[in-house]
This record gives sequence, C-alpha cells and structure tokens, in this order.
Amino acid sequence: MHIVCLDLEGVLVPEIWIAFSEAVGIPELKKTTRDEPDYDKLMQYRLDILAKNNMKLSDIQKVIATLNPLEGAKDFLDELRSKTQAVILSDTFSQFAKPLMQKLGWPTLFCNELVVSGDGSVTGYKLRQKDGKKKAVQAFHSINFKVMASGDSYNDLSMILEADAGALFRAPESIKEQHPAVPAFTTYKELLDAVDRFLSE
Amino acid sequence: MHIVCLDLEGVLVPEIWIAFSEAVGIPELKKTTRDEPDYDKLMQYRLDILAKNNMKLSDIQKVIATLNPLEGAKDFLDELRSKTQAVILSDTFSQFAKPLMQKLGWPTLFCNELVVSGDGSVTGYKLRQKDGKKKAVQAFHSINFKVMASGDSYNDLSMILEADAGALFRAPESIKEQHPAVPAFTTYKELLDAVDRFLSE
Repeated sequence: MHIVCLDLEGVLVPEIWIAFSEAVGIPELKKTTRDEPDYDKLMQYRLDILAKNNMKLSDIQKVIATLNPLEGAKDFLDELRSKTQAVILSDTFSQFAKPLMQKLGWPTLFCNELVVSGDGSVTGYKLRQKDGKKKAVQAFHSINFKVMASGDSYNDLSMILEADAGALFRAPESIKEQHPAVPAFTTYKELLDAVDRFLSE
Repeated sequence: MHIVCLDLEGVLVPEIWIAFSEAVGIPELKKTTRDEPDYDKLMQYRLDILAKNNMKLSDIQKVIATLNPLEGAKDFLDELRSKTQAVILSDTFSQFAKPLMQKLGWPTLFCNELVVSGDGSVTGYKLRQKDGKKKAVQAFHSINFKVMASGDSYNDLSMILEADAGALFRAPESIKEQHPAVPAFTTYKELLDAVDRFLSE
C-alpha cells in the first residue's frame, strides 16, 4: 500500500502569497521566510497588512480564485491519483488553498487554518502541529503505508528524508547541492516516472 | 483542523462484490461475512470462483467500470470536500475500487490490495493492517486532526467509536438498536448537516 505526499506551492500551484501580492498590487506581501526567518513575526506582518488594506477573508478568496494551478498540474494530479493515493502536505492555510483545491479536483490537503472573526476578518492562524509534514509521513508509516514525498523547499526536506522514497521538484540549486543524494526533477513526467519506480519496488 | 472518514460500500457506492456478482451473473459471489464469518476462507472462496471463471483483473475491472456510485454520492462528496478534508476508509481492494474512485473524482482511499500475477490473474490479497479503519482514525488523531467517521456496517463501529464525532449511515436496524447513542442518518443532506455541526464545534 503506497501513498505519495506532495508539497503544494511551487509543485502544484504558484506561491500563494507572492501571486496574491501581485494580483492585489501590494508588494509588501512578497516578503517570505527568507527575508523574515521568524514565522510568527512574518505572519503577524502579513495579517497587519491585510487589516490595513481592509481585506476580509472573502476579498482574499476572491483574488485567490483568479489564480490557477501550475500548467499541467491538474493532469499530473489526476494521473497520479489514478495510479496510487496522494495527499498534499502544505504549510498554507485551508481557506487560502480552497479555490485552488477546487481547480485541482479537491485532492486531500493537510495544512493549517486561519482564525476568522465573526465579521470575516482574518485575526490569526493556527498551525495543526510543528513539523506537520514530517509527522504526517510518520503517521502514514504507523498505518503501514509506504510513503514517497516530493517538494521544492527547505520545509519539505524533513518529509522527504522521512519517506521511503523522495524527490525534490523544481527546487533551488542551493537545496539540490546540499542534498545530492535526493533525486531532483523539473517536469511532472519525471516525477510520475519516479512514482512508477516507487510503486514497483 | 478537521477530517471526515467515510466508509465506501453502502455509503458512496454499492456493495462491490454483490453488484459484481449480479453484473457477471455469478450468484455464488454474493456470499458475505454474514454467511462466512472467516474472512480468509471467504476471500479464498471468492478468488477460487474468479479463477474457475477464468476472470483476470482486467476482466473484473471492466465489469466494475459498469457500476456507478450511489445516486447523489458524487455531489455529496464534492460538497463535503469543499467544506473540509475527507478520506475514505474501506476494507475493499484498491484495484476493485479504482473505476468507482474515478467516477467519484479520485477521493483519497485507504484500503487493501489484491495480489496480481504477471498474467493479470488475481492470486491473493494483502490487508494493510488489522482493524485498519480504527487505526487510521488514531493516526489522524496523532497529527492533531479532529475526526468524524461514518459508515453502515459492523466493521465501521470501531472507527465511529474512536472518532470525535460519528454517525451511522443507512445501517441495518440491528446495528442502530445496539448503538442507540450513535446518530443514524439515511440521507446525504442529514450527513452534511452533521458535518456542519462537527465543523462548528
């Protein structure tokens, strides 16, 4: 019994905060964990900007609904789901991901949640747990799944290294150089071929 | 963070072995765990009948591809997946379920696997683990999900009782009488209403 765990942003959809900042024309929202390594600080900074621009969750979702999955992502995911089980493990928020999940055909997504007040304002966020990607792989192992994991970022390495098979996908050169033993792919075709090898092992 | 675990047969699709036996006109395949409580014996009996009728996996899948999800099941599942995460926990085999999963839009399915030989004959089966439904709920709990579970049969009770919220769905009277504390529904509308209450708790 096999399962493939995929990162979301950069693998199936664009980086949501960056695409969102471009769609609404708020360049301050492009700041990422590379610029501000303290995640709590970064999120508070983002929530303050949303509040300052008087953007409620529904406004944000309307903008995100104009975004699209990466080219070929839906076909890739459909083919993957016809071969084996797939779950998306992401650090994003379910309310942000939702319009994109609909376009991807409602794959299962394990992620985090925004806290939304009665008037629809985004007032905070809740992580399901720390290092949630790695712990999800461990949970799948605990119920006898063989796990393959793929993602593009530093925060995907713990799940990739925990899994029985792993691959970087469209990762920056720096990560690839630091982990030469992890296969690195740039096309969905290569990733599906690696899934086929994983399934036949 | 919430997740809903659903039984497959009787909840979203017909009982696969029964529908299959009717589609191919082999009434002996209607025997269930009610007639033969020893599951290994029952499965060997079924595999022997498949072999006797010279049915390879591809033949079986062609027949199963003519079956359809229960009326309203796809719409129900799409609406459920727009509200929260959903995973199907089933004792069926991935290769049997596949044509029906396609019709349901590839929901995530945790189940068992048939062993298929090089010439496509079904030679055996592999359970992922014993009491797999309950253990999947425990695994979701271990990664901080709140879990709701619903099913129609005796083999669903352990996951329903393990979950934070549970409901019987189109269950026989006998099971409902033995578990009067578990809500029992017959329509997808009732089940979705129960999901809404679970999500707002």
